[in-house]
Amino acid sequence: MEKDMEFVKEIASKEKNFPQWYVDVVRKAELADYTTIKGCMVIRPYGYGLWENMQAGLDRRIKETGHKNAYFPLFIPESLLKKEAEHVEGFAPEVAWVTYGGSQKLEERMAIRPTSEAIICSLYSKWVRSWRDLPILLNQWVNIVRWEKVTRLFLRTTEFLWQEGHTAHKSEQEAEEETLKILNQVYRDYIEKDLAIPVIVGRKTEKEKFAGALHTYTLEALMSDGKMLQAGTSHNLGQNFAKAFNIKFLDEDQQEKYVWQTSWGTTTRLVGALVMVHGDERGLKLPPKVAPVQVIIVPIMFDKNKKEVLEKGESIRTILKKDFRVEIDIRDGYTPGWKFNEWEMRGVPLRLEIGPKDMAQGQVMLVRRDTGEKIAVKEEKLAETVKELLDNIQENLFTRAKKFLEENIRETSDYNEFKKIIEKQRGLIKTYWCGSKDCEDKIKEETKASIRCIPFEQEEASGKCIYCGKESSTLVYFARAY
Amino acid sequence: MEKDMEFVKEIASKEKNFPQWYVDVVRKAELADYTTIKGCMVIRPYGYGLWENMQAGLDRRIKETGHKNAYFPLFIPESLLKKEAEHVEGFAPEVAWVTYGGSQKLEERMAIRPTSEAIICSLYSKWVRSWRDLPILLNQWVNIVRWEKVTRLFLRTTEFLWQEGHTAHKSEQEAEEETLKILNQVYRDYIEKDLAIPVIVGRKTEKEKFAGALHTYTLEALMSDGKMLQAGTSHNLGQNFAKAFNIKFLDEDQQEKYVWQTSWGTTTRLVGALVMVHGDERGLKLPPKVAPVQVIIVPIMFDKNKKEVLEKGESIRTILKKDFRVEIDIRDGYTPGWKFNEWEMRGVPLRLEIGPKDMAQGQVMLVRRDTGEKIAVKEEKLAETVKELLDNIQENLFTRAKKFLEENIRETSDYNEFKKIIEKQRGLIKTYWCGSKDCEDKIKEETKASIRCIPFEQEEASGKCIYCGKESSTLVYFARAY
Repeated sequence: MEKDMEFVKEIASKEKNFPQWYVDVVRKAELADYTTIKGCMVIRPYGYGLWENMQAGLDRRIKETGHKNAYFPLFIPESLLKKEAEHVEGFAPEVAWVTYGGSQKLEERMAIRPTSEAIICSLYSKWVRSWRDLPILLNQWVNIVRWEKVTRLFLRTTEFLWQEGHTAHKSEQEAEEETLKILNQVYRDYIEKDLAIPVIVGRKTEKEKFAGALHTYTLEALMSDGKMLQAGTSHNLGQNFAKAFNIKFLDEDQQEKYVWQTSWGTTTRLVGALVMVHGDERGLKLPPKVAPVQVIIVPIMFDKNKKEVLEKGESIRTILKKDFRVEIDIRDGYTPGWKFNEWEMRGVPLRLEIGPKDMAQGQVMLVRRDTGEKIAVKEEKLAETVKELLDNIQENLFTRAKKFLEENIRETSDYNEFKKIIEKQRGLIKTYWCGSKDCEDKIKEETKASIRCIPFEQEEASGKCIYCGKESSTLVYFARAY
Repeated sequence: MEKDMEFVKEIASKEKNFPQWYVDVVRKAELADYTTIKGCMVIRPYGYGLWENMQAGLDRRIKETGHKNAYFPLFIPESLLKKEAEHVEGFAPEVAWVTYGGSQKLEERMAIRPTSEAIICSLYSKWVRSWRDLPILLNQWVNIVRWEKVTRLFLRTTEFLWQEGHTAHKSEQEAEEETLKILNQVYRDYIEKDLAIPVIVGRKTEKEKFAGALHTYTLEALMSDGKMLQAGTSHNLGQNFAKAFNIKFLDEDQQEKYVWQTSWGTTTRLVGALVMVHGDERGLKLPPKVAPVQVIIVPIMFDKNKKEVLEKGESIRTILKKDFRVEIDIRDGYTPGWKFNEWEMRGVPLRLEIGPKDMAQGQVMLVRRDTGEKIAVKEEKLAETVKELLDNIQENLFTRAKKFLEENIRETSDYNEFKKIIEKQRGLIKTYWCGSKDCEDKIKEETKASIRCIPFEQEEASGKCIYCGKESSTLVYFARAY
């Protein structure tokens, strides 16, 4: 018991010091670690296993909607990056530049991709000739570099991993449909069903949109400290890049036209979202669909029955392995209690305890990470019970997070109340905004809250801009954000 | 028919101009394309689909042998890279250097990883404390940059994709066992069984080993132009890096000791090997296990039966989709003959033709890419026949390549004959070598042939060094190589 307490003490209190709790959980659960390189982290096997499961679920959806994966170069020559004016302006301040190859100074310096529109458009302009070549529906899973000043494990790192989709279409309508299909059918489905994170979707304001896009759609998730996190974005690029990079096609009507494009991405910061949405004082709490270990078997061993219990544990592992990601903890020198705590901290959805008493009764004990509930299960019912419980845990995590999100959306038309809510309760504030960048900037300056999105569901009524009081029919969500 | 000929004409003759044939096939089959960035290619969806299947087979074997995936940073500070002297000497000439982050000059320049020993060792020194922390068995799938002067699609590119394993062990013996396990159980099994490429395995000479390793084991494959290609390497690093990076552990006997390490890698150049081992005058020929499309359905449509044939094609696709990677080519404006040629050129193992005559008889026509053989199959037997044929094609590709390899191993103890063989027939020469770097260098200089490996199977007999004539018992394989 003393050892148990010691263990938990290594993680800061979530309630008292959320930022430290976050870092402690990420590091103690061995999701990631710092390196000597400023702003760069190492994703450790447990964190990478999680990312691999996340990738699998999203990659499947990307492919089911007709996209294929490809790989474009890491380097973007400066002249290419400069072709779309807004785009370079948005990204230049955070670009890492390669200036030497071996001992040779390069004639033109190379950006390490901060996003790949420029390099991909330069190739699309070569590949697209006729309407028969369209649409192009490509995605890539790659590393990205943005030279950030302030960094946090997973949430904001100089280098991160992501997928970026880049499509080209014949018509404006087709591009807009693609942008929305990715938002709802791909991203929202993935984030809500696999990660059990409820999201609010909508459009970004001009100030917050992607550099070079016509408009940006976003998925926004509420972390359990009341701050929002942008979980993914889908951009309708219009013809901005097509014109800058000269991507033209001969249409069926024999007219030469510019293509319409989209791009969209989600990153390893979603690992951070998983930690912050579901975690608790005891550490991580992972949704079964993406957990690297879904069931951890902890044999309760005493000297005299060690062999039998181990054998039983191994035979259970063999049975469960067919359908689940299951591991067994047979380490010597750690008490069962210590192991329980460690696997709870690492967020494993189900613990399976097996000891001599259970064996005598032909049963095992299952313990849920989300509720702490203990369930004795007969061996012959084990596989089906595990399946049911994992499904139930997945659902429960989503339901809890959804409830928390709904409870933390507040409406106000009073700026003083707005400021109080942002300071004390945080969460989302639903209110009217006049549409001016000026009001948006001032609110950000005074409260650190930004417009997370203009939701698709607008109301018939109208109201007054929360800042200037001007009549407006545009409802928006404000929040502080990561 | 005229159109058919046109199509094939776009690929250079393999026999007359192998290098051009290679580039034509890679580009026409849309495996990869050049970019405006010197030495960097784009891997197109068809090539990346192939790479994904290759990754899946190798990743499974890496995990089955107890390794897990992780992700280490792209950047290596210059001071870290310099810690192991031989290592930096080997890699410094081809390192790309980042010197600016945004508009800020960096205090220390950063190498883009040419391989990750330095960054990974710096973290192992932090993670390893006791014998309980060992072994560490990690792998990563990442991009690598080496500033090459002469580049070729897939075979040698400034940026390429690879997996690199990095392990740390308690004892010299354990590290050596790991090095050999990767070579035989993982790499050889993967390359021979999935890629259908037979290899010769053995040890590299001191001249050819990895910079910083104790010794390097290699897998060498013969391309159909008679040149060899290094298909993968597995390095026993000894304690060189452990000492340079101070990776120590407290052993069970309470002594502090340096760990023993290994590293090992295979790259996207294996895609190039697939092209050069199996391809023919008509283009690619892909092994079924990794082919992005295993079966291509080509409906033979005339105006009056178009609808029925299309429906039948779709229903066959639905049936085969459960077990195979299958696509249907329903493009208008191309003749069946043109489609046949295109999919042959892209290396699809089986073509399925379905037309009104076949439909009337309740059958389809299957055509093998490897032999050209046509097989009429009743619909009810289709799935099982496709399975058998794909297995058979996989085996046949390996058998042919194996025969070609065996026919192209020649023995000689006469240096003039050696020179003639290398010039005219190429392939491998099995001969004795005295062990001196001097002889090795001179042979390379005079014939462009290098020692590909010192095979594990040595003979009891001895002979004379092919260059200096000194008595030697070391048999080696010489060849020209990519």
